[in-house]
Amino acid sequence: MAKKQLNVGLVGYGFMGRTHSNAFLQAPRFFDLPYKPVLKAVCARNADRAKTFAENWGYESIETDWRALIERSDIDLIDVASPNDTHAEIAIAAAKAGKMLLCEKPLGRNAVEAKEMVDAVEAANTPNMVWYNYRRVPALALLRELLNEGRFGRIFHYRSQFLQDWTISEDLPQGGEGLWRLDSSVAGSGVTGDLLAHNIDMALWLNGPITEVAAMTETFIKERKHSLTGKLQPVSIDDASSFIGRFGNGSTAMFEATRYARGHKALFTLEINGEKASARWDLHDLHRLEFFDHRDESRLRGWKSIHITDGDHPYMKQWWVPGLQIGYEHTFIHQVADFLQALGKNESAAPSFQDGLAVDYVTDAVLASAKNRNWEVVAS
Amino acid sequence: MAKKQLNVGLVGYGFMGRTHSNAFLQAPRFFDLPYKPVLKAVCARNADRAKTFAENWGYESIETDWRALIERSDIDLIDVASPNDTHAEIAIAAAKAGKMLLCEKPLGRNAVEAKEMVDAVEAANTPNMVWYNYRRVPALALLRELLNEGRFGRIFHYRSQFLQDWTISEDLPQGGEGLWRLDSSVAGSGVTGDLLAHNIDMALWLNGPITEVAAMTETFIKERKHSLTGKLQPVSIDDASSFIGRFGNGSTAMFEATRYARGHKALFTLEINGEKASARWDLHDLHRLEFFDHRDESRLRGWKSIHITDGDHPYMKQWWVPGLQIGYEHTFIHQVADFLQALGKNESAAPSFQDGLAVDYVTDAVLASAKNRNWEVVAS
Amino acid sequence: MAKKQLNVGLVGYGFMGRTHSNAFLQAPRFFDLPYKPVLKAVCARNADRAKTFAENWGYESIETDWRALIERSDIDLIDVASPNDTHAEIAIAAAKAGKMLLCEKPLGRNAVEAKEMVDAVEAANTPNMVWYNYRRVPALALLRELLNEGRFGRIFHYRSQFLQDWTISEDLPQGGEGLWRLDSSVAGSGVTGDLLAHNIDMALWLNGPITEVAAMTETFIKERKHSLTGKLQPVSIDDASSFIGRFGNGSTAMFEATRYARGHKALFTLEINGEKASARWDLHDLHRLEFFDHRDESRLRGWKSIHITDGDHPYMKQWWVPGLQIGYEHTFIHQVADFLQALGKNESAAPSFQDGLAVDYVTDAVLASAKNRNWEVVAS
Amino acid sequence: MAKKQLNVGLVGYGFMGRTHSNAFLQAPRFFDLPYKPVLKAVCARNADRAKTFAENWGYESIETDWRALIERSDIDLIDVASPNDTHAEIAIAAAKAGKMLLCEKPLGRNAVEAKEMVDAVEAANTPNMVWYNYRRVPALALLRELLNEGRFGRIFHYRSQFLQDWTISEDLPQGGEGLWRLDSSVAGSGVTGDLLAHNIDMALWLNGPITEVAAMTETFIKERKHSLTGKLQPVSIDDASSFIGRFGNGSTAMFEATRYARGHKALFTLEINGEKASARWDLHDLHRLEFFDHRDESRLRGWKSIHITDGDHPYMKQWWVPGLQIGYEHTFIHQVADFLQALGKNESAAPSFQDGLAVDYVTDAVLASAKNRNWEVVAS
Repeated sequence: MAKKQLNVGLVGYGFMGRTHSNAFLQAPRFFDLPYKPVLKAVCARNADRAKTFAENWGYESIETDWRALIERSDIDLIDVASPNDTHAEIAIAAAKAGKMLLCEKPLGRNAVEAKEMVDAVEAANTPNMVWYNYRRVPALALLRELLNEGRFGRIFHYRSQFLQDWTISEDLPQGGEGLWRLDSSVAGSGVTGDLLAHNIDMALWLNGPITEVAAMTETFIKERKHSLTGKLQPVSIDDASSFIGRFGNGSTAMFEATRYARGHKALFTLEINGEKASARWDLHDLHRLEFFDHRDESRLRGWKSIHITDGDHPYMKQWWVPGLQIGYEHTFIHQVADFLQALGKNESAAPSFQDGLAVDYVTDAVLASAKNRNWEVVAS
Repeated sequence: MAKKQLNVGLVGYGFMGRTHSNAFLQAPRFFDLPYKPVLKAVCARNADRAKTFAENWGYESIETDWRALIERSDIDLIDVASPNDTHAEIAIAAAKAGKMLLCEKPLGRNAVEAKEMVDAVEAANTPNMVWYNYRRVPALALLRELLNEGRFGRIFHYRSQFLQDWTISEDLPQGGEGLWRLDSSVAGSGVTGDLLAHNIDMALWLNGPITEVAAMTETFIKERKHSLTGKLQPVSIDDASSFIGRFGNGSTAMFEATRYARGHKALFTLEINGEKASARWDLHDLHRLEFFDHRDESRLRGWKSIHITDGDHPYMKQWWVPGLQIGYEHTFIHQVADFLQALGKNESAAPSFQDGLAVDYVTDAVLASAKNRNWEVVAS
Repeated sequence: MAKKQLNVGLVGYGFMGRTHSNAFLQAPRFFDLPYKPVLKAVCARNADRAKTFAENWGYESIETDWRALIERSDIDLIDVASPNDTHAEIAIAAAKAGKMLLCEKPLGRNAVEAKEMVDAVEAANTPNMVWYNYRRVPALALLRELLNEGRFGRIFHYRSQFLQDWTISEDLPQGGEGLWRLDSSVAGSGVTGDLLAHNIDMALWLNGPITEVAAMTETFIKERKHSLTGKLQPVSIDDASSFIGRFGNGSTAMFEATRYARGHKALFTLEINGEKASARWDLHDLHRLEFFDHRDESRLRGWKSIHITDGDHPYMKQWWVPGLQIGYEHTFIHQVADFLQALGKNESAAPSFQDGLAVDYVTDAVLASAKNRNWEVVAS
Repeated sequence: MAKKQLNVGLVGYGFMGRTHSNAFLQAPRFFDLPYKPVLKAVCARNADRAKTFAENWGYESIETDWRALIERSDIDLIDVASPNDTHAEIAIAAAKAGKMLLCEKPLGRNAVEAKEMVDAVEAANTPNMVWYNYRRVPALALLRELLNEGRFGRIFHYRSQFLQDWTISEDLPQGGEGLWRLDSSVAGSGVTGDLLAHNIDMALWLNGPITEVAAMTETFIKERKHSLTGKLQPVSIDDASSFIGRFGNGSTAMFEATRYARGHKALFTLEINGEKASARWDLHDLHRLEFFDHRDESRLRGWKSIHITDGDHPYMKQWWVPGLQIGYEHTFIHQVADFLQALGKNESAAPSFQDGLAVDYVTDAVLASAKNRNWEVVAS
């Protein structure tokens, strides 16, 4: 089967540059896809780093100016994996140049930026997707199937956390290379955009719109040295962010993200409680889904730990045999596979830029509520 | 060793009447105590039920009017285990009659009632205690020791839940015998006073005062039949209650109680995250404490599940041998033991009525915030 | 309801004396029973200890010679809770005296002793029961119901462990008061009779007869000081004991007991794998049953953790409310309740002395196989 | 950095052909290695299948006769991933042709075959390795470090299981394509060589030689249809295999493998109990190591669940960030990385063919003991 090539130009070479590059290479080896990604070029301001990255991942060429990348006629798709403050400018320009677009999350540093990005891809009528990769965890894809089948009945509660502990030390500097997530001018916000955005995208996908929130944020360490200048400066980001709220379906919301939860590395959790069933999941054991079914025989009801490695679990037929788990990077591979499958049918794979904007509306409401100490209605 | 007798008069014969009676009988068998409780009388309006209860638990006599019980000179201590709307009146009268006082939680239906009760026992200068029994879970007593030893450093986060699912069915009636917890005129509130009060007492004990809250409550099923009349009536209680907030020590609060979390029977959970350590616990496996110590060697850090059954764990030397767990009712036995130990030294065992009032201040703030949609400062 | 009294005479005042006494007192408070145990007398050679014990538990009198106890006409039932080397003599004499008999496990130090005991109670035609208390763990009682209902289909595998770590230190002395379990002349054997006997009784009850075994034992520490003399002496017991084997139903057996499994206090585990279902359980979380049902929908199959605290779980209606766990001593309470219920119907409650003998046949085969290095057929 | 090429010729295109090919491709992207594998040719009897496989994984060419593959001068290394009955012949021929050798496990169908293979590679003095991939699970590599550091003290017990359930149905055919593992003439044995071999290799690596065993095997379903002929034939393999035994260091062994343990897909477990520490692990959550350290403060001792995803855990610095787990296939990637690292230093990476032979000596003893019903000494 001769596959069509899809020529990829990547902007960024950090952590996300690696996960995306790996996904482009692995997806066609494990999934039967109408397109095969070709790694045409990677773009980074520093030519040496771009070269090293290109050599490692097999990119055919490098660029040091994203504008040059966008102008290249041999590139079909621009993948934006650079820091948050560059997303809007690059994506809008790429859309105008008619490129397909993949963009790391959060889409914009705020909903204003994100809305412009949505407008740009819609004007250009070009395929677009945001890398909210956790939608492609097989356990969560299964959970969505179960929800869509109506197995949960009326939903009462949805709660979700993203707990980390890597910024507790006062000695950790802020800003600059590798530490831009601690600089709100680059990142847009702290954990709200970095972590809570994942919780929110997942919640919108599984449980529908969030309508209102009452939030609080906290910055535990008020000053840190800058990684480049060494100067002590006020910390501009939120270290922790939490909210209570309501979903459009009447269920309650309880969300929290922090980088100060000692003992948790990347503990993204979620739990949903419905009339007839409940489920929970966490990223530290991502290959398991916990499920409680009230329709089970009364004396045998309990929480079931489903090891999501069977052939009839989403995505898993393509991998190994039952009992053998996959890891974090597979979520990106699945997302590429779904994107290419959709492309083959001239369809779009979610989450689109529009879906990314919906997340930014919620994170904007969270930040506003934390500031104003009021309930905030979520825009849409 | 000749022990002094402590003559007990119990008001109420329901679920809590059983746990208390069992505790009075078991405490002296397993703990070496200066006093031995003698079950003098149980009081219930229905004489037949009082008799049956008395016979089962070995009460020497019955009363059908609590005022008669209080007047008896052969009673040293009144234990109030009747519905919430009777707490204040009975306790205040008993205090005036010079009796020692034990009272089921919540102390009052609100802080106004609770304050009058505190005033009464303080005026009478009589020993008093509220049955916030979970302070005597060995795992939590150990946790408090660890906190007091400074092992956690600065505290960043405290979160706690109490999740049940027993009121999800629309067919469940409200009010009347055994169902007064669904009638706010009797109970004071719904899950806020019934469940969240436990979370709050524990938090105040472990992490100090809560200063402000932003809360929401929800009543999912708006009308239920009354258990006696069969008439459909508006539901007056909160089915779910949650809040975000702040502790006096600067840590963030995240609390939730509900009777609509399918799959959870009595899942009281708590987690505390400090600079140097974290811990978590839940009631479904109450004999375990999860503990994370950042001072462990880096590559060997992890959450430790400590099976709290060893002789050097609080209360456990009195029970069996390592590895053999205790159950729910033991928390009441421990509380009686502590009360009697303290009495032997002319001291009071916490939580006192004053401690009970502190909880009611928080629950009042929660209910007010949920109603007003504002942040509320907690009184003290 | 006026209950008949059942007058109890207890021999022994150690760990098991406490669990039995507690059970006699608690059973009638929580279960509706035709008989009420009355604690008539406790017997111990040391009068002071007997007095202290009697005072604590409410025994009406003491004896210092078990023969005197047996002769008393005001005693209906003799409960043998003294060290293993006394079981046979006391039980046989008590049977001849026409007493009902309860006996701690193992029944005899070997099957020869046990057989004589069985013959004695059968000749006397007196109710008899062995304290294999774990049959009354609600989770395991439920498991037996599920097995009896045919939910597992053909059984392929049964495995069970009893892992402790309390004898690892070389400094632990052997023999004498409180340490007779390390003296084979008193105990009969080491872990084989002390721990493995529990695994075996449970297995026979759940999965039927064991037909043949190939076993090994190990004594890791060859010499220990005697607790009384201080003299270094050879260790006579087995520290660890394991076997492979076959059940009469064709399933395979895999058993192990040890006091050298660092990190395990009293980890009694079992797992049974059938054609249609599997289950597992362990004593460290005795209120949970893990259950896998192959008839579940394919993509939702998983191990379910059933929190055995609901009203439709065996024994649990008598205790608290769903979600609230019980502890170790409840198994003895349940056993007393079942014994008295059976007595009310002139029936016997299992495990009888005959059942205790069946266990001793297996432990004898295990010890023989370990010694002979041959497969051994289990007598019956 | 210009890397040297290592030209690979693969024999076999099944499950293991995929895991190996993926490892050759992924290793150099995540690890800094002196050699880069080049996928020169894949060999399969069926040319169409070989072509499809080559296209998917990027092999430059195909062969349909492994002899032709071996003769090619552009091949440096032969990777034997074909059914067990072909291992010896191919490997011995390849060694004679001077090729480096990787071979799937078990090395031979029995120790006789394996010994010839060892002799061949030693005569040729060529690098050789067996794909006992689980040695490269980061959690187990960490465990070995801990053992080597003497943290466990004297070892008392080692136990290990490999539990599957995929052959329970009587309708499953045996033999032929994809089902050769049920044909002992091809596979050598059933679960003993397929599963138990993994348990044994791991045990030898972690705990040293096994000296003697008493074993049993069972074939639950005696006849199955052949997948090609449809004819009902006797089942020749062992469905379950278990043994007790002793290690050279004096610790006890308890091993079991089966394909009839309902509810377990690929539950490879191990536990090691030492004087000072214990550890356990299972493949269903391969990114976790459970560790108990007796040197912890007494009241804080417990089993720690270490999430093996930090930069100071073996292999993990090359992957993502703390908290993000890897999957099954990573063990093969690590093994290729280690092989190439060793090659760069002119060293060999374990497990060598000699190590593979050591496993076969144990499996031969297990099968002999099961047949003879005697204890068997393990050859060496």
